[in-house]
Amino acid sequence: MIETLRWTAQGVEMIDQTRLPHVEEFVLCRNYKEVADAIFTMIIRGAPAIGVAAAMGVAIGAQQASDENFEAEFEEICATLAATRPTAVNLFWGIDRMKKLRQSLSGEPLSVVREKLVAEAQIVHAEDIAINKQIGAHGAPLVPDGKTVLTHCNAGALATAGYGTALGVIRAAVEAGKNIDVFADETRPFLQGSRLTVWELQKDGIDTTLITDNMAGHFLRSGRIGCVVVGADRIASNGDVANKIGTYGVAVLAKENGVPFYVAAPISTLDMNIASGEQIPIEERAASEVTAMFGHKVAPDGTKVKNPAFDMTPNRYVTGIITERGVAQAPYEVSLKRLVEGN
Amino acid sequence: MIETLRWTAQGVEMIDQTRLPHVEEFVLCRNYKEVADAIFTMIIRGAPAIGVAAAMGVAIGAQQASDENFEAEFEEICATLAATRPTAVNLFWGIDRMKKLRQSLSGEPLSVVREKLVAEAQIVHAEDIAINKQIGAHGAPLVPDGKTVLTHCNAGALATAGYGTALGVIRAAVEAGKNIDVFADETRPFLQGSRLTVWELQKDGIDTTLITDNMAGHFLRSGRIGCVVVGADRIASNGDVANKIGTYGVAVLAKENGVPFYVAAPISTLDMNIASGEQIPIEERAASEVTAMFGHKVAPDGTKVKNPAFDMTPNRYVTGIITERGVAQAPYEVSLKRLVEGN
Repeated sequence: MIETLRWTAQGVEMIDQTRLPHVEEFVLCRNYKEVADAIFTMIIRGAPAIGVAAAMGVAIGAQQASDENFEAEFEEICATLAATRPTAVNLFWGIDRMKKLRQSLSGEPLSVVREKLVAEAQIVHAEDIAINKQIGAHGAPLVPDGKTVLTHCNAGALATAGYGTALGVIRAAVEAGKNIDVFADETRPFLQGSRLTVWELQKDGIDTTLITDNMAGHFLRSGRIGCVVVGADRIASNGDVANKIGTYGVAVLAKENGVPFYVAAPISTLDMNIASGEQIPIEERAASEVTAMFGHKVAPDGTKVKNPAFDMTPNRYVTGIITERGVAQAPYEVSLKRLVEGN
Repeated sequence: MIETLRWTAQGVEMIDQTRLPHVEEFVLCRNYKEVADAIFTMIIRGAPAIGVAAAMGVAIGAQQASDENFEAEFEEICATLAATRPTAVNLFWGIDRMKKLRQSLSGEPLSVVREKLVAEAQIVHAEDIAINKQIGAHGAPLVPDGKTVLTHCNAGALATAGYGTALGVIRAAVEAGKNIDVFADETRPFLQGSRLTVWELQKDGIDTTLITDNMAGHFLRSGRIGCVVVGADRIASNGDVANKIGTYGVAVLAKENGVPFYVAAPISTLDMNIASGEQIPIEERAASEVTAMFGHKVAPDGTKVKNPAFDMTPNRYVTGIITERGVAQAPYEVSLKRLVEGN
């Protein structure tokens, strides 16, 4: 089993996702600023993994905060972590969960607060894996047998504490005995598909074929793709989905070709505070991600670039949203509310 | 003006498109085998440019063929050039044009045949530039003023003898005083967009923004794109279009968002012998184009890859086909036939 991140006595250890697949190296974040930096630079990425990392960042920050100035430092820790990336709501969810715990412990000695925050971060970590297994169990029956599953970006073990959301569905389908293979979009500019998804599915012995992003339409039209499964960075209360740039294109092409398009994500990825995906902030990242690859410049000097890291897929393209509590379908305003409320 | 290729006393000179944009170097092909190799390795690419290169390849081959065995060698020259790449019909068009000329000169002394073949290759070259100017003139009025034009791959000066087809339309729109800018898809795996389209539009001072292929949908949905213009490698008699992989996806996303999708191509790109695009052979290229970038491996060792170099866009997504003889619109069976017959 791939370990994306782990809590240790020295700090938070994370596999460096900027160096995979050819270098498998763990980075040690010894304080909350290093955790924030790891999230910002995408040493760790993937909405659920960011949520867990943020919780661990709060915990390590609280461990090291001074007794004298604990409240102010705690606020600063949470604010620093929250400022790393704007789109994935799990980041804010992870921080909020730690904040609420801290509030519930007001009056307790700081030693108890620190201990419980550290324990909570580890619970968040363990829960995430359990949640992904449940997502897999709900999603596996939806995967057509004898066909190919197309996925975009990496919503795998590496995007979570382990097992994965979209790749969790694929793993569960394989474990259920289904005869499937996977097509992985390479996912420019960061290449989460070629570097991460292929790597982790190869480790599990799941038959995976790498394609460039612009080939997805060709293969969706070909008839070999049985369904698309992707993750999500934030899902609005109406079922609009923000996910890695290119997801919208895949969703439209899937619908155009009659291929079901599923989003696999934990309840913590739902943002019930927003009415539609148009309200989701889309992170713009550095031009150099597009103009250079591994230090090699691929575009002329002075090239203008747009680099939105995410896009928004309107709910009408989404066949189902697979969560740990079941599969939501349209109308999502109703079905998602029901899942969140646990009915 | 960018010179893609030129006939010289020493052979056929071509700008090496595998090394652009950072190295501007001309390669000299001293015989037909080197021309065939340049086409195969994509030192030269783009359907019209391949057509011109093939004609020049036949000419240089005929120059060097022996008197004793001229007919057999001429056949071998044509067969070798025809075997380089399967999809772009201009390759076969260029070779056929030279074959027909050779047939019309049967009975003439070989010195005359050679001289006329060399002259013909230069005519093909000059005509191509003139054709592109006419494509530009027909296309410019279709480009919405004050908006962005999205293009995919490179259908520019570098894909032709000069001026370009899709980029010819953009150049003509700019020359006509329209206030437009361009979004260029980077076009994985060969990066014709980032390496070639950005480079040549920058040289012309046309405002160009580079995006990854998977961002096209996001910007088509945003409302800023006024139209899409792309080139073509082969157009069936019903208006189905084979073009660089990813074109189909852009076409579907354009239609979904009410954005006109134009194909700019010379009449020589029409294949009136085939009823639909399903009959167009799609070239599959090496896996290493996808798994490595400039010598840097981006996917794990042993990664399975699909690498179709082209896809097919059904005619229902095509708003218009811009040729040197005018703009064809649906029903294409009728409109393309009319253009080919010159009515």
